[in-house]
Amino acid sequence: MGDYRKLWSDLGMDLEKHDQLCAVLPGLFSDTYLNQENRPDGMNYFNFVFSEVHGLRIQELDEHKKKGGKVIGTFCVFVPDEVIFAANAIAVGLCAGSQFWVEDGEKVLPRNLCPLIKAFMGAKLSGTCPYFESCDMVIGETTCDGKKKAWEILDEYVPVHVMDLPQMKREKDYKMWMDEIKIFISKMEELTGNKVTVESLKEGIKIANAKRRALKRLSDLRKHKPSPISGLDVLLISQIAFNDDPIRFTEKLNELCDELDERVKNSSTSDKKRILITGTPMAIPNWKLHSIIESLNADVVVEETCTGTRYFENEVSEEGDTIEDLIKNLADRYLNINCACFTPNHGRTDDIIRYSKEYDADGVIDCNLSFCHTYAIEHNEVEKALRENNIPNIHIETDYSTEDSGQIKTRVEAFLEMI
Amino acid sequence: MGDYRKLWSDLGMDLEKHDQLCAVLPGLFSDTYLNQENRPDGMNYFNFVFSEVHGLRIQELDEHKKKGGKVIGTFCVFVPDEVIFAANAIAVGLCAGSQFWVEDGEKVLPRNLCPLIKAFMGAKLSGTCPYFESCDMVIGETTCDGKKKAWEILDEYVPVHVMDLPQMKREKDYKMWMDEIKIFISKMEELTGNKVTVESLKEGIKIANAKRRALKRLSDLRKHKPSPISGLDVLLISQIAFNDDPIRFTEKLNELCDELDERVKNSSTSDKKRILITGTPMAIPNWKLHSIIESLNADVVVEETCTGTRYFENEVSEEGDTIEDLIKNLADRYLNINCACFTPNHGRTDDIIRYSKEYDADGVIDCNLSFCHTYAIEHNEVEKALRENNIPNIHIETDYSTEDSGQIKTRVEAFLEMI
Repeated sequence: MGDYRKLWSDLGMDLEKHDQLCAVLPGLFSDTYLNQENRPDGMNYFNFVFSEVHGLRIQELDEHKKKGGKVIGTFCVFVPDEVIFAANAIAVGLCAGSQFWVEDGEKVLPRNLCPLIKAFMGAKLSGTCPYFESCDMVIGETTCDGKKKAWEILDEYVPVHVMDLPQMKREKDYKMWMDEIKIFISKMEELTGNKVTVESLKEGIKIANAKRRALKRLSDLRKHKPSPISGLDVLLISQIAFNDDPIRFTEKLNELCDELDERVKNSSTSDKKRILITGTPMAIPNWKLHSIIESLNADVVVEETCTGTRYFENEVSEEGDTIEDLIKNLADRYLNINCACFTPNHGRTDDIIRYSKEYDADGVIDCNLSFCHTYAIEHNEVEKALRENNIPNIHIETDYSTEDSGQIKTRVEAFLEMI
Repeated sequence: MGDYRKLWSDLGMDLEKHDQLCAVLPGLFSDTYLNQENRPDGMNYFNFVFSEVHGLRIQELDEHKKKGGKVIGTFCVFVPDEVIFAANAIAVGLCAGSQFWVEDGEKVLPRNLCPLIKAFMGAKLSGTCPYFESCDMVIGETTCDGKKKAWEILDEYVPVHVMDLPQMKREKDYKMWMDEIKIFISKMEELTGNKVTVESLKEGIKIANAKRRALKRLSDLRKHKPSPISGLDVLLISQIAFNDDPIRFTEKLNELCDELDERVKNSSTSDKKRILITGTPMAIPNWKLHSIIESLNADVVVEETCTGTRYFENEVSEEGDTIEDLIKNLADRYLNINCACFTPNHGRTDDIIRYSKEYDADGVIDCNLSFCHTYAIEHNEVEKALRENNIPNIHIETDYSTEDSGQIKTRVEAFLEMI
């Protein structure tokens, strides 16, 4: 990694504390990723991006800002990147995946709260996330009580605009969501000084769709038996998708997929169990569950999560002649995401069953971050549906600490033996 | 208590399990309530109602049902009773306040969840709440993730209609809430076969307003030093307000207030500390915190909670000539409630500061049920506002078990010594 200390210092970061983070991350990455055997060559790009995640990409953001551009931080797959692209701003996912930030988050948040929320708050409060420090605005959403209320505190440190996501999917909720997208467009126009036009929004939609298509292509490749790529590698790619330049990312991912196309032609057999993971998102560098599963005789072949299928399934229609048309297209695609924040949310169980078949999964691990009420309660419905379809499954609730890793490994091991 | 075993049996209740509940409740009530000194005579009515809470009132519901009437269960101060009254149905608050039901609730819900939600689920699953068993429909709302998702499970056992409460208070959110009230009216008309007319809705509004006025009158009496009534007694009255016949309740409460009017004329002095409680609701028979506080040298003089001021503050305007007018009046009053489910919710901190002054509170106890994210996170803002106003305060998070009672008592004792 180059020397970015001046850049970090200019951003107002806490260099000393950030050094502590930089001291542990490469080792964790190396232990988790670089020891894997037979990785595709195309992963080198993603390894590089990760190694430069607090460096080169931040420098790109800095250059964009120096030219008057804006940087928008997001945390959720419901915030339409298309609008951010259309306003010529850069969208970045914010730091939220490490135990490193939890303690600082607990200074202003209750301990009985999802680690993702505590981590993003701690990342901001401790000044150790260069993405946060590069942000001109953070876009929140009302997908859960924890985040909804945490934005109020975060807003004291960085401007936050909250999109009110409907909690149901009735006709009137679609209209309400279109309205929220309109408000979001105005907000972006105001912040960037750039008008969102039919052309620029269509261009934004095209960029986002191309990225979705590449991620879907990667996902489809995992249907091969054995999957030509580890679940860990796909997870890393998904996490990087939230921060990298979308056009470059898409190009590099398609190159990797070209390589994987060749791989599957010459694939051998494998006795590894095929696992579908469903549940809450895994923000970088949360590789805990994949790492445990793939250290055993199993491959993660699909993730029905926000860092999985929910992020890339279904494209936004590019048809339409007015902003109104395009907003409707956006609302249609985004409200089609089956998040546990909706009531009811039967679409998610349908998805899990469908993916289990499409990816020929031997079992499902329903995993949610601790204290995530929506996913934890929805497990009841998920479990019932899987049982009715004779799909073996277990439920894991965990946070970012490593304290329960041994216990989870034992449970997953027993599960793999059973299926 | 009379013999209601046939009635309970006809309702399909689990008599054996219900007997276990009946075996402990009177003792708990007697220890908490009947040992208080110098109680107003007017409390006899409320003692009686409590002693008959699973008896005489259930018989009344039964008689109403035999005449073709409907019974509607609710859990939240956002569900407009006025509409239920207008459809000639009876509104009852449902069982949700005892540890007795938690274990059964945990059979289908995660343990890391608010005890109120686990308790109502357990009360239904165990068949030990005669109100639940008398209900033709339960009206849920989207005030928190826990309840929002729990309705989905509850709906498997009793029909549930969910009102989608907006999460903000912008102009468009008022319109959305009016829309939800309209849907609720249709639902009630469909269920009861009774049309909600301008006249019947106005009558419903009058009944609810009269009840609010009586509760406000009681509350205002507590501004006297010393308060002419214990916080425990007021809590019981508030809890009964959710289940008793509203017209009789109002009449009896006004009689009690007449007696208290006389009391305050002859009041002595008191060195007891005056405490404002703010936070989450206290469902019957959750008397834990009041009981601890008033066992020490202190009086609870006001509750900024859903079983306190949020339930009765602000009346619904009775003006208007159309259903649309009245729905707007309802929306105005209900969206004026400052629940932590809204973002932002500065109105609540304003209320707490204002009440602290109006009731001359010596200190504030901000208390939320375990795992209640919205109130737990909002504590950050509450604490800051109280500190800026030099109002001493502590934060308590607790559930329905008695395990932490000793610890809470020690903390409250230290707090009272400090203020």
